[in-house]
Amino acid sequence: MSLPRKLLAEALGTALLLAVVIGSGVMAERLSGGNVAMALLANTLATVGGLYILIEVFGPLSGAHFNPAVSAVMAWRGELPKTALVPYIAAQLIGAVLGAWLAHAMFDMTVLQWSTKLRTGTGQWIAEGVATFGLLLVILRAPAGRASAMVAAYIGAAYWFTASTSFANPAAVVGRMFSDSFAGIAPTSAPGFVIAELIGAALAVGVNRLLSPARPVDEASAHPTPPARHA
Amino acid sequence: MSLPRKLLAEALGTALLLAVVIGSGVMAERLSGGNVAMALLANTLATVGGLYILIEVFGPLSGAHFNPAVSAVMAWRGELPKTALVPYIAAQLIGAVLGAWLAHAMFDMTVLQWSTKLRTGTGQWIAEGVATFGLLLVILRAPAGRASAMVAAYIGAAYWFTASTSFANPAAVVGRMFSDSFAGIAPTSAPGFVIAELIGAALAVGVNRLLSPARPVDEASAHPTPPARHA
Amino acid sequence: MSLPRKLLAEALGTALLLAVVIGSGVMAERLSGGNVAMALLANTLATVGGLYILIEVFGPLSGAHFNPAVSAVMAWRGELPKTALVPYIAAQLIGAVLGAWLAHAMFDMTVLQWSTKLRTGTGQWIAEGVATFGLLLVILRAPAGRASAMVAAYIGAAYWFTASTSFANPAAVVGRMFSDSFAGIAPTSAPGFVIAELIGAALAVGVNRLLSPARPVDEASAHPTPPARHA
Amino acid sequence: MSLPRKLLAEALGTALLLAVVIGSGVMAERLSGGNVAMALLANTLATVGGLYILIEVFGPLSGAHFNPAVSAVMAWRGELPKTALVPYIAAQLIGAVLGAWLAHAMFDMTVLQWSTKLRTGTGQWIAEGVATFGLLLVILRAPAGRASAMVAAYIGAAYWFTASTSFANPAAVVGRMFSDSFAGIAPTSAPGFVIAELIGAALAVGVNRLLSPARPVDEASAHPTPPARHA
Repeated sequence: MSLPRKLLAEALGTALLLAVVIGSGVMAERLSGGNVAMALLANTLATVGGLYILIEVFGPLSGAHFNPAVSAVMAWRGELPKTALVPYIAAQLIGAVLGAWLAHAMFDMTVLQWSTKLRTGTGQWIAEGVATFGLLLVILRAPAGRASAMVAAYIGAAYWFTASTSFANPAAVVGRMFSDSFAGIAPTSAPGFVIAELIGAALAVGVNRLLSPARPVDEASAHPTPPARHA
Repeated sequence: MSLPRKLLAEALGTALLLAVVIGSGVMAERLSGGNVAMALLANTLATVGGLYILIEVFGPLSGAHFNPAVSAVMAWRGELPKTALVPYIAAQLIGAVLGAWLAHAMFDMTVLQWSTKLRTGTGQWIAEGVATFGLLLVILRAPAGRASAMVAAYIGAAYWFTASTSFANPAAVVGRMFSDSFAGIAPTSAPGFVIAELIGAALAVGVNRLLSPARPVDEASAHPTPPARHA
Repeated sequence: MSLPRKLLAEALGTALLLAVVIGSGVMAERLSGGNVAMALLANTLATVGGLYILIEVFGPLSGAHFNPAVSAVMAWRGELPKTALVPYIAAQLIGAVLGAWLAHAMFDMTVLQWSTKLRTGTGQWIAEGVATFGLLLVILRAPAGRASAMVAAYIGAAYWFTASTSFANPAAVVGRMFSDSFAGIAPTSAPGFVIAELIGAALAVGVNRLLSPARPVDEASAHPTPPARHA
Repeated sequence: MSLPRKLLAEALGTALLLAVVIGSGVMAERLSGGNVAMALLANTLATVGGLYILIEVFGPLSGAHFNPAVSAVMAWRGELPKTALVPYIAAQLIGAVLGAWLAHAMFDMTVLQWSTKLRTGTGQWIAEGVATFGLLLVILRAPAGRASAMVAAYIGAAYWFTASTSFANPAAVVGRMFSDSFAGIAPTSAPGFVIAELIGAALAVGVNRLLSPARPVDEASAHPTPPARHA
């Protein structure tokens, strides 16, 4: 696979991921008549299904990261060429914004808009750190062939067990800044979330080493069919 | 497998698919007391379960397309004999209508009826295009043995993230025209949906080529157990 | 495996299945405050999870039929010794009643009780026939190793798309006669359900033959690891 | 793997499990506006997803027991060194409490608190016995590679079909004593639950022997890839 194709895959996959997250949030909010638990439940199930198939579809092409924190960890581990890191992140951010706009177009909403939903405070930041820590731990330790189901299941759980509903992805934060809807986040709240996510990701790298001294990247390269990396 | 058996499989599978979609919509609407989010949630889960098992059951027999857009793409790629395309579509359309009628019979409703539910407008058409684009991308890129779970998961997500609740299937449009219930679509709204679906399917074929120059059909024929195609 | 162990497995598995179906119905009805869609949704998810694990656990022991209609079809196909049929059905019926009683004991209800919930009429009977037809088709055509997930997914869908909420099992009918709760069925309604189920099962045997002339039982015996049969 | 690493895995895994159970309970209670069925449904789905990935992640490291009753059975069967039993249980109990505190920190709640929710009576105790019996039976009989999905599916069902919502884990009882929230249990109710769980676990060991005289532990050691044990 050439890098341009990988970037196309990352951009398209991230766009579809954001369209799923934001679009299902809009649909859920419209239909649930103010029942927030119902809205989040529908939003959760759509995200779980969407993540599962997006990782399966794009994993063999680009690794299906869709997430700058994941790409950074992969570059640090040598599983992504370091020169590809910035292009990957750019593709993810562009894709995320386009995905938000696609959701708005489908739901007859103003395409360009900004979220006004404040998400801030110590609890939220701890939650985002925990959410991203868990996501990276899942990605780094998923058995071959199970990463798609595991990442989807993890995010489904994390929508509920973390106080921040688990963005766990700086590209998702950026895309969701552009949507004044159920899944949105106000731009002023974005930096706190991104910093917490990066700390959580770094923590996962450290804990992963504590749990097993052998470097999983070496084991992985010994497999005939390397596991898809992502989310 | 002879062609008549394949056509029986397509007709029966499409009939059961429509019975699941329409029947669960009726049940959900009756029990949910006006809570549309709850009704769509139940409708979604039933459809996900039904699609999964129908693709597993009928995939080895006919490919489990249940969908003229899927059959057209398969014929175009040479995975379905071109002479089988019209009979496949006929079997799917007949099955879809019979499935709607079966649902009505189970729920003590007038068997022959027409939907009055208008589904129209730019947002709906974009949504149907996106929905069918995603479905075909999933089908064209699903790893061997995972297509059943992936198509089911995708449609489950698409019921929520597309503004049209993702028909993504011209045979489903035809069958659902015959049901004045939760899952119905007024006949006047049908052409717009079908056109959007065909555009979405064509787009998926193009994007699939951009993503990988090698023709997956060749790879597939090298597998000892070819993946089920469908939905 | 000796026959007594198989019968213990069938009785225990059927008891746990009925405890899951009836127990989750009681819990769902108590917590949902009159929201029948919510109650059926919870009842559905519990049944799906329960069926999946019960088939995995008991499949290698007894085939995990838990269902006289399934055992009858298996005996007719030569996959169950004909002399084992009556003992199997007896074990299932005894297990079903004990399972209902176990559910009542857990929920502090009178152990011995009878359902007063009438379930009758042409729509209900057609639905029970369709439900059992679908179940047997799934069992007869499930690929090796996927029967547990497929039966669970099918029943989850059938709780919603059939007007009868898919009993699809004469032993379940008997067990649920003994529970005046959400999942119950009045004894006077039981014969209609059982007859409809047997017709549906017979229909599945016929359609299965139409779909493939080769006898799957022969193919199955050629597999090194025979698929679990059940539910 | 050295014992300290295994203990780290058990403590971290149990902490995350309790954070999932308690955190999703808090989120569900806050969002559901008094609809207990909705709250338990969300709590259930988060727990199912969380258990699945935690068993996959920690299974290869420590067996992913997260549960003193499971560790005791494994020690009794010779699958866990007897000298590791007390350290395992200590790690689980410490992890459980830390997990409760992590949930509180995320949701801006007082970190140190005690549950006031009474859970007592014969029905509750029978239910806890049944819940733990079922869990151990699933663990002892899960086919290789399916234990993660099966334990998750089982607990999801057991949240609804047992009157006690299936703690099925003395470490979970201890952690949930420390949370005055949806998932909590008053300390005075804890001993009854733990005793019922241990009786249920012992019963599962006995029934497992009745079902198959051959010792599965021997079969398991013949597998090239031993199944993960857990939950």
